Amino acid sequence: MPSEDRKKSRVTLLDVAQRANVSRATASLVIRKSPLVGSETRARVEAAMRELGYVYNMGAARLRAERSHTVGVIVPNLMNPFFAELLAGIESAIDSAGMVVILAKSGDLVERQDMVMRRMREHGVDGVIFCPAAGTAPEFLERVDEWNLPLVQVLRHISEGIDYAGADYAGGMRQAVDHLASLGHERIAFAVHGPVHSAYLERVEGFRDAMLARGLDPERIIRVPYQTARIPGAAHLLFETPEKPTAVICFNDVIALGLSAGLHDLGLKVGETFSLIGFDDVAEAEVIRPRLTSVSTAPEAIGETAARLLLDRLADPLLPPRRVVMETRLHVRQSCGPVRPPAP
Amino acid sequence: MPSEDRKKSRVTLLDVAQRANVSRATASLVIRKSPLVGSETRARVEAAMRELGYVYNMGAARLRAERSHTVGVIVPNLMNPFFAELLAGIESAIDSAGMVVILAKSGDLVERQDMVMRRMREHGVDGVIFCPAAGTAPEFLERVDEWNLPLVQVLRHISEGIDYAGADYAGGMRQAVDHLASLGHERIAFAVHGPVHSAYLERVEGFRDAMLARGLDPERIIRVPYQTARIPGAAHLLFETPEKPTAVICFNDVIALGLSAGLHDLGLKVGETFSLIGFDDVAEAEVIRPRLTSVSTAPEAIGETAARLLLDRLADPLLPPRRVVMETRLHVRQSCGPVRPPAP
Repeated sequence: MPSEDRKKSRVTLLDVAQRANVSRATASLVIRKSPLVGSETRARVEAAMRELGYVYNMGAARLRAERSHTVGVIVPNLMNPFFAELLAGIESAIDSAGMVVILAKSGDLVERQDMVMRRMREHGVDGVIFCPAAGTAPEFLERVDEWNLPLVQVLRHISEGIDYAGADYAGGMRQAVDHLASLGHERIAFAVHGPVHSAYLERVEGFRDAMLARGLDPERIIRVPYQTARIPGAAHLLFETPEKPTAVICFNDVIALGLSAGLHDLGLKVGETFSLIGFDDVAEAEVIRPRLTSVSTAPEAIGETAARLLLDRLADPLLPPRRVVMETRLHVRQSCGPVRPPAP
Repeated sequence: MPSEDRKKSRVTLLDVAQRANVSRATASLVIRKSPLVGSETRARVEAAMRELGYVYNMGAARLRAERSHTVGVIVPNLMNPFFAELLAGIESAIDSAGMVVILAKSGDLVERQDMVMRRMREHGVDGVIFCPAAGTAPEFLERVDEWNLPLVQVLRHISEGIDYAGADYAGGMRQAVDHLASLGHERIAFAVHGPVHSAYLERVEGFRDAMLARGLDPERIIRVPYQTARIPGAAHLLFETPEKPTAVICFNDVIALGLSAGLHDLGLKVGETFSLIGFDDVAEAEVIRPRLTSVSTAPEAIGETAARLLLDRLADPLLPPRRVVMETRLHVRQSCGPVRPPAP
């Protein structure tokens, strides 16, 4: 076969995009039947696909009978029990479909995520559910796109062109602020840690908006260490401003469990002289004393949803991209009480 | 090629074993140069290998240049933070070797472990580190043996013919009993849960032996629920015998964290009116109040060791099987105190 012909049979999405004079990302959206693309652009991309024979290649990929019945899952870390619960949800749904999960950690590092994704592809997984590492560039998705590897974003999102399952983090923050406000708290801090990504920003913005909506100061945001064992020792950071808070909302339960211990060390009684709300509602919330009031993001349900999105996409690769954002629920236990005047 | 000839070129370990009139497991031990096989048997198996041409096949497998640079890891579950720490150790060593870990859960189910191992093999991993699911039969290893898939057992062992990295669980139990005895405790309970496997039996026997060596009653063993959130509610089980214990040693830190909360609920002060020791020394031991005294099994170091055993075996598949059993260390914090007469 002359090399020109051989080339022709390996038309890439980039070829289509160049022919249609659009970005590769836009061409990808057209393939996924995204509503974000205008009809004129769509028509141009579809014409380019027909002319270059791209449709046929895609169809062949779609119809490939050989499936490995294996789904790849990539998460930032496994030290937070939240991810273990998310995985339990993913596995139960993937299991029911007679498939197997293989898992890898990105360590929240873009290069590592790159390598792991590449390796999973080489191993022939049918699709990947991933929680994008902080700092993942959209170009990453374009590259994966070339591989025809079905993807689902979970917990964090970097593209509207790809399925996503997550929680309404901003709504959860509102529930936490409302609960504390109903107990009379006005000086409410927010304790965060870790890298910045969509779920981080949605929580910070959710906290700020909810505080501002009540006319409260939204700037009491403290950063605590990422390492579990070092969080209790950071509780004093809450009290380094002139107007001390009477309550704290935590970015996740790992922080809440650590600050609960740290506040105890400072002589405060959580749920009585200081109020504390966690986020995620992991199993440990039930096991510490006082029991932790926490915003439930239902990680297991998010995991199941992400798995279903992927299974649906494997069954029909032309489905338009879908977003499932689950509502949160405040699980009230013992770690909050009515506001009290500070001890003399 | 006549079918007879073709068959000959696919000699299996079973053929070798039958020719040498030994079990398949014994033949496998010979290949691994295990010291457990007598010289006469070894000579017979090696003769059979030569006659059937098995050596040549093995050599071909050993010399295969094509590596996927991927290591499979199979653990029973991910809800126990102990496994997350073990994985961190495995990953850091595998990372340093420029390889990638893919992970799967067996759920402590033999059939699931079977499927996952098969899938990993199909995906072409270079080797597998696995914590054998409870009830794994030795035949499982014989089958994997046929695949020429290098294996390392971690935390639990089912065969002496295969590399193993674990902790001296019995020694750890002795350290826990000795510490409580030094504080005057005599009525010491042991709280367990989960399925029975080598690490379970070594802990139970270690507890019994250490108690008997001091002339103490070794039969105060209670079983608590497996589900984290249900453990606190099981603390009363400790006090259902006529001679109530003054201290409890826990099978792992998940149980210790749960019973710490449950004892608090019963009005006891852990570290003062009741003593409690955990096992594994996970990061959370530092984060609850009172801080948990726990036997450190150094899961991260065990993980690194298991990874090194596998890397060594990939470099030289003919190494004799090795066992690395790491010493434990009691990490004394706040959850134990001198024995007191029970409250009136």
